Order: sequence, then C-alpha cells, then structure tokens
Amino acid sequence: MTQLLNPRDFEFLLYEFLDCEDLVKYPRYEDHSCETFDEILRTARKIAEEKFAPHYRKGDEEEPRFENGAARLIPETKAAWDAVAEAGFLSAQHDYEQGGIQLPAVIHAAAMAWLNAANIGTSAYHFLSIGAANLIRAFSTDDQIARFLPAMREGRASGTMALTEPDQGSALGDIRTTAEPQDDGTYRLFGAKMFITGGDQDLSENIVHLVLAKIKGAPAGVKGISLFIVPKFLVNEDGSLGERNDVVLAGLLHKMGYRNATSTVLNFGEERGATGYLVGEPHKGLSYMFQMMNEARIGVGAGAAALAYRGFLESLEYARERPQGRLPSMKDLTTKQVAIIEHADVRRMLLAQKCYAEGSLALCLFAARLVDTERASSDEIERSRASALLDLLTPVVKSWPSKWGCRSNDLAIQIFGGAGYTREYNVEQLYRDQRLNPIHEGTEGVQALDLLGRKLCQNAGEGLELFYRELGEAVEAARAHDELCSLADQLSAASKGLQTLTQSLLAQIDRDVDRGLSNATLFLDLFGGIVMGYIWLGQASVATARLATAHGEVKAFYRGKIQAARYYFEWELPKIEADASLLADGASVPFEMQDAWFC
Amino acid sequence: MTQLLNPRDFEFLLYEFLDCEDLVKYPRYEDHSCETFDEILRTARKIAEEKFAPHYRKGDEEEPRFENGAARLIPETKAAWDAVAEAGFLSAQHDYEQGGIQLPAVIHAAAMAWLNAANIGTSAYHFLSIGAANLIRAFSTDDQIARFLPAMREGRASGTMALTEPDQGSALGDIRTTAEPQDDGTYRLFGAKMFITGGDQDLSENIVHLVLAKIKGAPAGVKGISLFIVPKFLVNEDGSLGERNDVVLAGLLHKMGYRNATSTVLNFGEERGATGYLVGEPHKGLSYMFQMMNEARIGVGAGAAALAYRGFLESLEYARERPQGRLPSMKDLTTKQVAIIEHADVRRMLLAQKCYAEGSLALCLFAARLVDTERASSDEIERSRASALLDLLTPVVKSWPSKWGCRSNDLAIQIFGGAGYTREYNVEQLYRDQRLNPIHEGTEGVQALDLLGRKLCQNAGEGLELFYRELGEAVEAARAHDELCSLADQLSAASKGLQTLTQSLLAQIDRDVDRGLSNATLFLDLFGGIVMGYIWLGQASVATARLATAHGEVKAFYRGKIQAARYYFEWELPKIEADASLLADGASVPFEMQDAWFC
Repeated sequence: MTQLLNPRDFEFLLYEFLDCEDLVKYPRYEDHSCETFDEILRTARKIAEEKFAPHYRKGDEEEPRFENGAARLIPETKAAWDAVAEAGFLSAQHDYEQGGIQLPAVIHAAAMAWLNAANIGTSAYHFLSIGAANLIRAFSTDDQIARFLPAMREGRASGTMALTEPDQGSALGDIRTTAEPQDDGTYRLFGAKMFITGGDQDLSENIVHLVLAKIKGAPAGVKGISLFIVPKFLVNEDGSLGERNDVVLAGLLHKMGYRNATSTVLNFGEERGATGYLVGEPHKGLSYMFQMMNEARIGVGAGAAALAYRGFLESLEYARERPQGRLPSMKDLTTKQVAIIEHADVRRMLLAQKCYAEGSLALCLFAARLVDTERASSDEIERSRASALLDLLTPVVKSWPSKWGCRSNDLAIQIFGGAGYTREYNVEQLYRDQRLNPIHEGTEGVQALDLLGRKLCQNAGEGLELFYRELGEAVEAARAHDELCSLADQLSAASKGLQTLTQSLLAQIDRDVDRGLSNATLFLDLFGGIVMGYIWLGQASVATARLATAHGEVKAFYRGKIQAARYYFEWELPKIEADASLLADGASVPFEMQDAWFC
Repeated sequence: MTQLLNPRDFEFLLYEFLDCEDLVKYPRYEDHSCETFDEILRTARKIAEEKFAPHYRKGDEEEPRFENGAARLIPETKAAWDAVAEAGFLSAQHDYEQGGIQLPAVIHAAAMAWLNAANIGTSAYHFLSIGAANLIRAFSTDDQIARFLPAMREGRASGTMALTEPDQGSALGDIRTTAEPQDDGTYRLFGAKMFITGGDQDLSENIVHLVLAKIKGAPAGVKGISLFIVPKFLVNEDGSLGERNDVVLAGLLHKMGYRNATSTVLNFGEERGATGYLVGEPHKGLSYMFQMMNEARIGVGAGAAALAYRGFLESLEYARERPQGRLPSMKDLTTKQVAIIEHADVRRMLLAQKCYAEGSLALCLFAARLVDTERASSDEIERSRASALLDLLTPVVKSWPSKWGCRSNDLAIQIFGGAGYTREYNVEQLYRDQRLNPIHEGTEGVQALDLLGRKLCQNAGEGLELFYRELGEAVEAARAHDELCSLADQLSAASKGLQTLTQSLLAQIDRDVDRGLSNATLFLDLFGGIVMGYIWLGQASVATARLATAHGEVKAFYRGKIQAARYYFEWELPKIEADASLLADGASVPFEMQDAWFC
C-alpha cells in the first residue's frame, strides 16, 4: 500500500517548523513529551492503516442504507469507530478529571490527519463527535456534562451539529426550528434539519444532536438562535438510556463522495416534540455553536489537506513506476521508455501537489498550534494574540486547503491519465471526496464574507496587525539565508500591497457595502495566497538552516521542501497580482450583470 | 426540465457570429438552406430531450455490465442509438451517393451538442462511430467502403478507435499489437487494447474496430504503425454477417463518470488471430488515424462545452429559484430572503460559467466552420488556410473547453451548495463526466507538446501567421465600436506579446529541447487564453452591432453576450500575464525538481 501520509513531514512540521517540543512548557501539557506525542501518532497511523484504509473503497461502493427508519453502515465502520474510541482519541484533549489526557490540539490534529487520509467518510463520525463533546464541555452545565459526556468519551454516544434546514443553509438567521419551554426546564423542539452528518448510524447506542432552534418570541435573525442538546435516546440521571426521543430519521442524502458518512434529514417533533436541553443562555446559541464551527472549519481544512496529501503520494508512486514515452531529446525510439516522473510536465504536477498538500497540512497544524497557545499559555497577552490571529486566519485555514485540495486531487488524476479516471485507483475517489470541502461548514463565499466583512476589522484590526507582524518576522528570518532573499522580498512586497489594498477595500465597503463586498471571494484568494506564502517561506527557512548540517536522505527531504517553496513563489504567489488589480479597481462586471441578461 | 442548451445562442453563433447562411454558397452545400439547418437542429434537440436526457442518471447508476463475455447496457441506450441512426445523423456528412445528405460539419456539430448535453455517455457511441465511418470513407478502398460503410450508416454496425494498449497510452510509437500478412491480402492481429470506448455493446449487430498495429519488420516508433479495419463479426462480400472474428472482450473498465459509455479491454488474436484489413499503405496508419483523432479532439472540446453549458443552465435556474439570505445592505432581518442570483458572488460564478460554456461552444463551432471551409470551399487558398489554422488551433479546441469545462461544472456545484453535492441534481454527474475530457484523445500535456513542439512551426508557421491575421482583423472590427476599444487594445497587446514570446520560446527549444518544452502546458494555457479572447471579442462585436437595432428580450441577450465578453477581458484574460512572465523567464523550478527530493 502506498503511504497515506509522510511521517518524515510530520516530524518536520511538528518539531522543526512549529516547535511542538515547547508545548510541554505550558502547565496543561507538562506531563507530555515528544515521546508521548510520537507514540500517539504511531497509534493513529496504525488504526488508520488497519481499521480505516481497508474499507475506503467499500464504504464508497456500499454506501449507508436507509432501513426501517435507521441508517445501516458496512460493519467495518463500527470496528473503526470502536478502535478510535478505545485508543482514547474521542476525549484525548479533555482534562484529566474528565477522563482525557490533555493532549495538545496540534498533536490531536496530526493524529486525525492519518484517519482522514485513510478514510474521510468514516472519520467524519469521530470528527463531529469530538467537536460536539468539546462544545458541551465548554458551555454546558455540570449536570449536562455528567449526563452526556461520559458516553461520548467512551464512544457509546456520538455527536452531531444540526444547523442547516431544508430551506436554510448559509442563512442561519432564518431557521424555523422552534423550541417550546416546558415546566421542568427542558424544551420541546419542532422542525426539520438537513445535511446532518452522522445524524443516524449504527455505531453508537446514542447520538447527541446539538441543535440550533428559536425559542418562541426570540428576536429575528441570528440573535434569536438558541442551542440545545437533543439526544436520540433520552438519558437518565445515572447515564443509562431512557426512551427514544422524538427525533426521526426522515432519509439519507446520497452524495457524490464522502459516502460512508451518512448525510441525513432529521425531523424533530413529529409527535410530542423532541426533548432538548438548553445550552447556556437563550438566544446565545450561535456564539456557542461557533466554537464547534470554528473547530470544524479548521478540521475541514485539515481533512482537505489529508486528501490532497494522499493523492499526491499515490500519484508520486505511480509516476515513479509507470514507464511511458521518452524525453523530447531522446531521438532513438528503440531505447527503453522512461518513468513518467522524468517528464517535465508530470514533475510540475507532482511539485504543485506537494506544494498544495504539504502547505495545507502545515497551515492547519499551524492553526492547531495557535489553538494550543490560546488554550494553554500562561501568558494572557500571548493567549489573546493567538486567539485574534486564529480568528483572522480561520476562513483561510478552512478554504485554502479545500480549494487547492480540489486542484491537487485533480492533478493526481491527470498523472494517472485514463487509469486515474477508473475506480481501480483511489485518486478518483479522493477527487470526489474532496469536492465536499469547499461546501460544508460554510462555503467559500461564506468564508470570504466572514474574512472581508468581519474578521479584518474585528477587535480594531488586532488580528490583521498581528498577521502583518508575523509576516515581517518570517521575512526577516528568511533574509538570514542568501538563497531565500528574493522569496523574502516577494512576500514583503505582497504584505505591503495587502496593507494598501485592505485600506482601499474597507473604504469601498464604507461607501457601498454591497459593491464593496462583491469581490470578497477574490480577496479571500489573495489573502490566502499571502498566508500560504508565509507558511512556505517559514518552512523554507527551517529547511535551509537544517540542510547545512544534514546528510543523505535527510538532505533530499530538505531540498524538496525548499524546492516546493521556490515553486510556490515562482508559480503560485504571482497569481495574486491579477486578483489585486481587480480588487484595487473595484472590478464590477459580475456585480453589474443582470439576471435578465443571462439567457 | 431545465433547458439542455440555449437555442437562441445557437442562432447567434451559427448565423450572426459564424455566418453559416454563407455555407450554401459552397457547391457541396448548395441544396441546403438555413431552414434545413434549423430543421436538423430541432430534430437533434427532440431526440436529445426524448431519447437521451431521460436516462442520463439511470445510465450512471446502472452502468454497463460484463455478462457472458459481452457488455450489457440499459435498454434506453439502444433506443437512443436507433433514433440517431434513423434520423440519419450517422452518415449526415457523407456524400449523397454514399447515402449522406452532405450536411456541413458545423451544423452537425451543433446537432451533436444537443446529444452531448443530454447524455454524454450514450452519445459516445455515435460520436466514435461517425468518426470511424469518416475515416473509412476517406482512406479505405472501394471494396472496404462497400463492405463496411452501409452498415455503419444505418446503425447496424458501430465504430471504435483502438489505439491505447495496457502499457502504451500517450506513447503510441511503442504499441505492441502485431499484424501478420496472410496470403489472401488480409492480416492476422495479435495484441491487447485498453480504454476502447464502445469496444463492446449491445446496440448494433456488428462493431468495426479501427486498430493500430505493427506489421512485422516495421520501423520503430510511430513510423511503423499501420491501421486496420477489424470487425467484431466478419462481413461477407454481400454485406451479410459472417463468423465471429477473434476479438474478445476481456473486461470493462469502471469509471468515475461517462459511465454509460463502455470502456473496454479487448484482446485481439487469443486463438487464430483477428482478421484485419489494411487501410491505405503500410506504416502510414497514424496519419490516417489522425484524421479521426483530430475530428475526435474537436468532438471532445464540443462535448466539454455541452457539459459546461448544461451545468451553467441548471445552476442558473437554481439560482433564480432558491431564496437564501439577504444583501449586506439589507439590515432588516424580517424582510423576505432574496433569490441567490441576487448575491454578487453567485452572479460572478454564473457569469464565469456563461463565459466558459458559451465561449467553448463558440470556439468548437468556429473550428467546425473551418472544417467546412477546408472541405467545401472552391477556393484552394482558402481551403489550405482553413486547414492550417485548424491544425494550429486543434490542441486549444480540445483542451480549453475541457479544462475550463471542469472549472465551470465545479462552479455549478458550488452554486447549488450542499444540494449540488448530492445525486439529487445533475451537476455532480456533469462534474464527474466532464473530468474525462482533459484526459481522453490526448491529455492536456500531450496537446501542449503538440502545440508548442509541432504546430507553431508547421508549414513554416503558416497557421500562426494566419492566426495573427485573424486576431488583427477581430481587433479592427471591435474598434468600430467605442465601447469595445479597450477590449480590442487588450487583445492587440496580448497578440504582440505572443509574437515576442513565441520567438523567445522557439529559441529556448533550439538551445535545449527538454528544457524548452518543459513549460509547454503553461504555453497552451496562455495561447488558449488569447484564442478565447479572439472568440469573445468577435462575439462582442456582433452583439454590439445588433444591439443597436434590437428590442426587448433580444436586447437582453446581446447585453449578456457583451457582459460575458467584458467579464472575460476583465477577469480571465489578465491571468495570462503570470503565464507569460514564467515562460519568458524560462521558469525552471519544476524542471529542476529531482525525483529523490519528493519525499
């Protein structure tokens, strides 16, 4: 089997690029060491290879079925679910007293990358469950925690996030699910939710839905949304299962990819109403949900990175093994054919994938590292800075790997040629699976509006200021290496351009908010391009420094990192110039297009 | 049902943009009129809507099965096959005396676009059969024509092109199928072919394979390839079917999309050898095959255009009907939601699709119009010019719609959001189907080497000179309209840039052919971008002229054309500047990347 990910790259990213050995300086993580981190990664890899990868194709071909009102999965999924639960990953980030091991988020993210690369459909159940448990842990009452968390920790219950409705996707302010207060302090929920991943399955005895709904009389829009815990089965005080709640699986949605993850339509309250427990205060549900949503957004980016990475490695192996044709200079047609990696265009497609995949993984681990600083640093200013920077970068962490992951998996198919279009190889499934990522947890357009319309100015622009400072530091660090000076200059110029452009865009928005935000997606592309420049310049600086004292294969690894960075700065970063011109000019042809003119 | 294509656009493209009413001035087409053309298009549309579109999803879900050594399709495919045969499309371009109606290629291409849009998997059988018949018509002996063509014309036989082998895809010079001459003038073929579309089916009683093979003792490489007619069943002199030939269906390949088209592995000569009839002279097979291949390449482009077009129209309809959210300026959250077409970013994605889809269709019809000039003009110089220009443009006609068609179908999904990722809507299937187009009939990389390594210099650069002249004329025509002057200036500058760049690239190739050709794909992108600029400027000129005297809805149509052209020049064409810089600098990071550095 081709490797799912490259362990050497994890070593590089965690310890050479992100200095994760320093995590143990935070009191929360002081019991850990690089050894425990590595052991955890080895465990995740083993589970991925043994319990997830083998049914990657089968879970696609034999997708979940709707039988007698329930979802039925291939049995391998349950074995994978259990293996992850038994290894303790469902609660690994929790406090010791909650049964966790206080695992840093960045190590957890690296571990999850193995599962994602092996089988993203199956890993979706864990991914959502972990996020739901984290939300409950953060905002629920002690009673709620005691009632629901132990089962979620042990894998007896899973979690979901139930936001979208048949008529409301991106526009959450308009959801129609209602919650009626009961005398006992619980609520009764009525409404339908759609695209709920893991909304039903046969992996765990219970499912804890985190549901957005409006309490009668709530304000209009997002300020009237409350958050409820709505279990599939009611849970008694002692944690034992009670009767079935009024939550009904109305049907499964059949997707292009990501198939082993059920996507469900759920009806709440077909009869008496679904019993729900309010989380936190009324009408503040969206702010709580956004903790899970932000975690999910980083998770989507990390999943996209993993899919791109696996496609890269599979096409790399194929390119090394498949002989075809000769170089243009080889005129003797009786000579042996070359492996296709010898063809310049194939090498370009591999290098582009290396750049997208490794860059995406580095970005997501960088973000997870910020989560750790935010969560565990003893320095309040450091915590608040990490939080502000992460807030700013989250739309990019979600969207850049998703967008370029699709391009990356596209290139993997192209390297395989006709073979890559068949279901004999994994690259076509990776391509189909990947296509969900620019959609779920907020489409590219939603991320773009979040970035340009909210995040840039949030906290008086603190995140943006911090990002400029980060860029400046990365540029300075790179300038210590002669061979990186031109790359550093390029990023420095891009940073200056961004500062000017941002001012101009904010002024455009002030003048006319609809027009000013109309090119938000373009801005997201440009901003993401600069963020990725920062990530690649950082990696190049580390690799250049280490190259000086490296030997043999290790040397080749660093050379590859530097070459990927050079590729990024030569081929990819210059693309933002066209975006910058359009943005600066307030390019308005699409904005001015009229419905009636379309055809 | 959403419209598959826009009939108003055909009217525009055929009669306003490409002056197809002038076709009847050619003696070959003198019996035709715009009325007969329109009648033929109406027939094609009716067949597409009634016989092709209804089983688009079913043919994907119930893909062809391998049963008792044969391929079995859903029965709707046979009904579609017959309808096209009965309507006379299989031989419509043939001479009257061969049973055809001497239909112009451009009208034929427009008719086929309806079938492609409705069901590209099913239309593949016709597409290949028509190409195979055209090849036989052009290069076979009278006896061969008499033996095989009547059945192909009537749909009793279909045709295939059998080039690729399990070990040889793009590198045809290395094929291993052999042909042994027999005393009776026939040959016996031995070898395996792979990815043969339509290599078996249950639509026609016979299949005529056009097979590339090497006669023993042939020169190495492509100069040793011969072409053979190898029928599934031998055909007696009177045209009746004889015994089964030694051609065995070894298996079906299961694809990501395009599923209703069988992709087969065929074994020739498992026993006595498959009887084959040499076409033309020995060792010249590839040159004959290239007639079919070039026709197929234009056909791939046209198929890609049709898939993009349908995705555009489906997402347009959805965007007009789906309410979601409000404009940033609408602060009152109790107001009604707007249709998503009101969101600027959705309008951008629709306009981009309009630009890719309509531009691709215009390009392919433009190419088919050149086929007609080449085929039917009474002016020899005109014929030769059309031929030279078509030769030059074929790699772009094949690749631009394929590449941007994928992007276009990607945007269609994005507009649908989560719904677009489900199999409830067609956009996900269009996306999967489309992904074959950058691969088959020569990958993007192969087209790029063909363009930069061969076509630019072919016939002492005649094609390129003619293209520059075409560009100059389009620029002059556009300058007649004030509002198009800036677009004309942009294209003129791009044309000048291309001239300088081309000289520099040819010099780079002279110095070091491997390095010089290493960025061929980038050049294909750039060259394609300019070709599409030519196509959109041309459409804009026509639309601007007509707008002056148009009324009502017609006005809106022309405004849409102009806006799409403005979009192309504002958002798309500037992208070639980054490509141009890389090419001019001989950007070499991917070329210098080493295998060992990858990981």
